[in-house]
Parts: sequence; structure tokens; C-alpha cells
Amino acid sequence: MEPGSRGPAPGGVSVSAVLPAGGSGERLGGATPKQFCAVQGRPLVSYAVRAMERISWISDIIVVVSPENIETMKNIIEKYGHKRVTVVEGGITRHRSIFNGLKVFAENEFSSHLVQKPEVVIIHDAVRPFVEEDIVSKVVMAAKEHGAAGAIRPLVSTVIASAADGCLDHSLERARYRASEMPQAFLFDIIYEAYKQCTDYDLDYGTECLHLALKYCKTNAKLVEGTADLWKVTYKRDLYAAESIIKDNLSQQVCVITNVKETLAQVGFLLPESLKSQIKVDAISISLIKNDSRLQNIISGQCYNFVYVNDKRWAIQETQELVNMLEKSNIPLLCPVVLILVRLDISENNSFSIGMEDLTTMKKFARETKKKNILVYGLLIQ
Amino acid sequence: MEPGSRGPAPGGVSVSAVLPAGGSGERLGGATPKQFCAVQGRPLVSYAVRAMERISWISDIIVVVSPENIETMKNIIEKYGHKRVTVVEGGITRHRSIFNGLKVFAENEFSSHLVQKPEVVIIHDAVRPFVEEDIVSKVVMAAKEHGAAGAIRPLVSTVIASAADGCLDHSLERARYRASEMPQAFLFDIIYEAYKQCTDYDLDYGTECLHLALKYCKTNAKLVEGTADLWKVTYKRDLYAAESIIKDNLSQQVCVITNVKETLAQVGFLLPESLKSQIKVDAISISLIKNDSRLQNIISGQCYNFVYVNDKRWAIQETQELVNMLEKSNIPLLCPVVLILVRLDISENNSFSIGMEDLTTMKKFARETKKKNILVYGLLIQ
Repeated sequence: MEPGSRGPAPGGVSVSAVLPAGGSGERLGGATPKQFCAVQGRPLVSYAVRAMERISWISDIIVVVSPENIETMKNIIEKYGHKRVTVVEGGITRHRSIFNGLKVFAENEFSSHLVQKPEVVIIHDAVRPFVEEDIVSKVVMAAKEHGAAGAIRPLVSTVIASAADGCLDHSLERARYRASEMPQAFLFDIIYEAYKQCTDYDLDYGTECLHLALKYCKTNAKLVEGTADLWKVTYKRDLYAAESIIKDNLSQQVCVITNVKETLAQVGFLLPESLKSQIKVDAISISLIKNDSRLQNIISGQCYNFVYVNDKRWAIQETQELVNMLEKSNIPLLCPVVLILVRLDISENNSFSIGMEDLTTMKKFARETKKKNILVYGLLIQ
Repeated sequence: MEPGSRGPAPGGVSVSAVLPAGGSGERLGGATPKQFCAVQGRPLVSYAVRAMERISWISDIIVVVSPENIETMKNIIEKYGHKRVTVVEGGITRHRSIFNGLKVFAENEFSSHLVQKPEVVIIHDAVRPFVEEDIVSKVVMAAKEHGAAGAIRPLVSTVIASAADGCLDHSLERARYRASEMPQAFLFDIIYEAYKQCTDYDLDYGTECLHLALKYCKTNAKLVEGTADLWKVTYKRDLYAAESIIKDNLSQQVCVITNVKETLAQVGFLLPESLKSQIKVDAISISLIKNDSRLQNIISGQCYNFVYVNDKRWAIQETQELVNMLEKSNIPLLCPVVLILVRLDISENNSFSIGMEDLTTMKKFARETKKKNILVYGLLIQ
């Protein structure tokens, strides 16, 4: 799907999202709240926003941050080109922040934000960077039907209750319980009503939105088994894990670019088809000389591998454009960018001497870009 | 403390440990059970064994593995030079494996193992590589007093119970519950009695040793708040995290070696003293020409940084011995080993020309070792 276009939401409902990002990250042991910690040079919250943004049927994304981080968040949105995002000031607890996020859709005082009340609202965490459309879609569908829904995971450790003397009171049978994770989704009117009715004690000490929907709106949330990647970045080790996973994902992404529609039809499509079982492939047909927003989006999504399919020449000038865009994006500072130039020579009249000349130019070009941490390889297909 | 010598256990009790390592690691999604997955080239179980082994007052370490992994485990013990370890065949569940481990101390049929029944037995996991003496000691002391004790951590996610229809039944108030972690410790007679009495259902479906002590021996375990590093490697992301933490720890370890006791007294001790607030320092005084088991232990503990303090010459021959030992250990295959040669020139009669000659020899030597991924630097202190 082209960025910008909106596909239909599951069940045909209108959907928006609230991302509480007001936490102080005290369990991480650092001064920077975890949602603003850089993972591969990019703040964690930006990954969570991107995960939501990639889902075309989510209309608005409300990111709720503490007052002192509003500017930081706005800068992140600008730097990484996030769209459909509204930044809202949070409260002193998670529940108060979510409530503030929901108010944007419902109350007049926030009318300046110009967002429309959705039928279903997703609540997700800024510190859960790896959420896939599949689970979001399942949770939204379940919320439409049941009024509330949330992702769950098996418990990793046995849960125990301690007595007042610090000794074991009882342990829970692990199989009967689940960890409540994110994303969760609600019919907007249900969760908003629950927040309006709930006590200050709930707002200050509660941790579970599903509980509020049950307590104040008698809505038993549907529980949806999620995948292992829903986990929340809580400790420093989780930042390490997130970094490794992101590196892994990046090396498995490739963007195939071509300047000729016909060529794309022949090779550019065959290539993604044969690669996509192993890696994530974007394929676009554009002129590199023109500044194309689709390519900009892919680059700002931190794609590290590019294949440029060309049917005539090595197209040094166009490749230079791509190199310039990459350099400007700061991506090559983090990891080497691999750029494979594929030249399809479909003419029968090929001259070896021109090939040699091209080769020398190519080699020189590759040497220059290597200094910028961009590795250029050429491939000639006759 | 010198390796091999045994300090007194907390509370003066005799202590041994059982490490269940029979799991199949199905949650990890790989073919290799997680305890045998290599982290920085070394199986995870070896880190957990080493963590126990470093605690001098633990007499015996029983590692319980499934029948097909007994040879693998024995090879790991030999390769990494683990001491005080007995490998025992496990059962089909975690509880059955722990029970098998305990039997070694108690039953005649296992008398061939020659291990003595301890007063307190620690139960720890093979997939929790980062356990410090401090928490083990606290748990052992509490077990001596209360009969049973276990490390706990705050819950990361809210725990919920689902109804038969897959909807939320209720959520637990997060503050009232804890995650039960390892290590745990028990008076041997209590936990062994509990295992002897418990049902097949407990052995097949139970997950919690503290629960068995409570149910069958009316022993309410003391719960001890543990540190964040007690977590269990469960998913692939945990392997990533473990790898990053181990890398971090390694780069913060240095072994200071000197061949002269007097020099060690002067500089070799000043250096560790000034370094130890930032990094972990071992300091030993040995002749590198003789094969010293203390140095072997440090090298097999995967120390990556060495400082060799010498009071006369650059000691190429002795340094070559150290390089040989490092090469044989395969450590330089994983990460570059940094070796700093410090020459203390305490004479007043220093000749510049000899210095130049030495420098040339040193440079040549460093070039050779660099090929082996051992980076040698020289430092002259006059």
C-alpha cells in the first residue's frame, strides 16, 4: 500500500490510537526516560509511533508525554517525518495520561487539535516498539465485538503472593493466569466512560485499562494471545534486546528501486517475489532525480539495503542522488548501507570496451561512497 | 580469595547447589535448548555454573540434564575447566529433574558420585547466567532460618485471569504480587521430604519449589527481593540481552599480572585499587613461564584485558607465553584481547639507544600478535 492512502479498518470501524509516553523510566536506572532512549540512534518512541503509522487504517495517533518532554517529542516527530501524530500533555500517572489522550477526541477544550472521535481506540505503549498489524487488527476486531480487548502472553515466572511478614502466602497456578500486554482496544465510548467514572485511587494507583472497563462499564474484555515480540522495554537489558532485534530486522530489509516501469515489471517484480519469503521487500518505480516522498519514507524508515535496477547505463548521476539522500538521512552513520546497482543490458549490441570504461568509473564511485559508509556493488545482467 | 580454598558459608552451614538444565527451550524457537545456546561463544549453562563456582562456600554443583545431553554437558565442563560439578540425568519435567538432582545427596544408589548431603541446598536455573554472591548468600541465610527462601522481583505486567470464554475474569492488583525467581534455597531435609511426598500431578505440572515446601512441609518460604539481573533467558531477545550484558562485563574486566612481588606491592596493587571502582580487577603475582592455574582460571573466565607489570625488561619471552595461553583458549576468536605491557624502569642509568632497540622488537611483536586478534601496547614508566 502506498503511504498516505487509507485502507479500510477491520470491521469497517474508524480507529485511532493513544500512546502513553509519560513514564519516567526509573526501572531502567538511567536519567533518560526509556521511551526517549536511542536504539540504533533513534528514540524508542519513534519505533512505536512508526509501528502504528504503518497501519494505514489508523486515523490519528495521540502521543501523551509529560510537560517537560513536549518539545522533545515534537522534534522527534519532525526529525523522523511522523505523520498523523498529535502530542498531548500527560498527567502524573499512566492512567491520567491515557485519560488526557482520550479527552482530545471528546472534549471541546481540546478542539484545536482537530481530531475526530473514533469508534474504536487502540491503547499501546511507547516502549513496545515491535507491534505488527496482525495483532492490532485482531484486538480491534475483538474490541468492536466485545467492547474491550487486550493482548496477553503466558507468564514467564510463577506469580506469588506474600504475607505481611514477607513470607510466601500462596503461589498462583501459572497455567490459569496470563500477563496482560499491549495493544489493547476499546469502543471509545466504553473506555472514555470508564475513565470519567473511575476514582482518584484508580487514576493514581491502577495499572490496567481492561480492569477499568470491567469495573465501571461491566465490559469483560476479550483476551487475544499475542506473539513474543509484544514485550515492553522495562530494564536496560530490554534496550540491548531491542537494539539487537532492530539490527536483525534492518539487515533483512531491502528496497528495490527502478526508473523504468517496464523493467520493474520484468525484473524488479521478480526480485521482490523471490526475496520476500526471506526478507522484507519494498519495490518502487521512480526517477531518482526527482525528489520522491515514497523513497524518503523508506529511507526515514531506516532501510539499510537498496537494489537499483536500471536498464541502460550505470546511471552514476541518479545513484549519486540516492547516495546524497542516504547521506542526508544520517543512516550510514549507524551501519553500512548496501547499495547494489543492477544493470540490465537487453541490447544485443554490447561492446566490451564501454564496459571496461564503465567499470573504472564505477570502481572510483564505489571507493568514494565507501568513505561515507555506503557500500556500492555493481551487477551486469545481459 | 584464591580459587580452590573454601570460605565459610553464611551462617556456617554446608551448602551445595542443584541446577536443573533439562529444558527443551521450546519458547526460544530454536533447535538447541536455550541452556546450550552459545552466548559470546560459550554455552549459557557454563555461565550459570561459573556463577555458582565462583562462590567458594558452595561445595558441590549438581547439573541435571536430559539423557541425550549428558555428553554435551561433560564436554562443556571439561572445555571450560569447571570444578566441583556432577552431571546427573534428569526427568521429563523440571520438578522431576530437580528431584533427581537432590537424590544424589540422599540415596545410596547414587553413592558413586561421592557428594555429601548439605544442610542447605540452593536451586538455581541453568538459564540465569547473572547471579551474584550477595543474593545467593541472602537466600541461603533466609533458608537456614525459615527452612525455605526464594528471590522475588516486582511484576513487569499486570497479571489477569481469563474465564472459560477467553474473556477477562479479573485482574490482580500488581503491587500485591511478585514474580518468583531463582535462586531459591532450602534446608535439604525439607525440600527432599516435600519431593518425596508430592504427587505425580505436582511432579508433572507444578512449576514452583516454594509451593511444594509449603504444601508438604508447612514451610512458608522467606521471600527475598532480588536485583534485576536475576532474569531468566526465555526468548530469543533474552539471548540478545545476555550477549550484550556479557560483552559489557567483559570489557570491564582486567587482570593485572606481575612477576615480582615487590613491584606488585608498589604498582600492581595501586593499579587495581584505582581501577576497581570502575571495573572488575584480578591481580596476581606469578611467573608467566611457569604454567599457573590461577591465570588459567582467569583466562577460562574469559577475561579480555590484561596488564602485565614488569620491572626490568619488556620480557618478550614471558609475554609470548601469555599470548600462547590466550591463543590456546580461543578467546581472541571472539573479541580482541587487549594486553598492556607496563615496564617500570626504576634504575637511574637509562640508555636511550637500548630503548629504541626494544621499541623495534616490541613493534614487531605487536604486529605479529595483532594477526591473532591480541592487541599489545607498551607503556614505559621511569
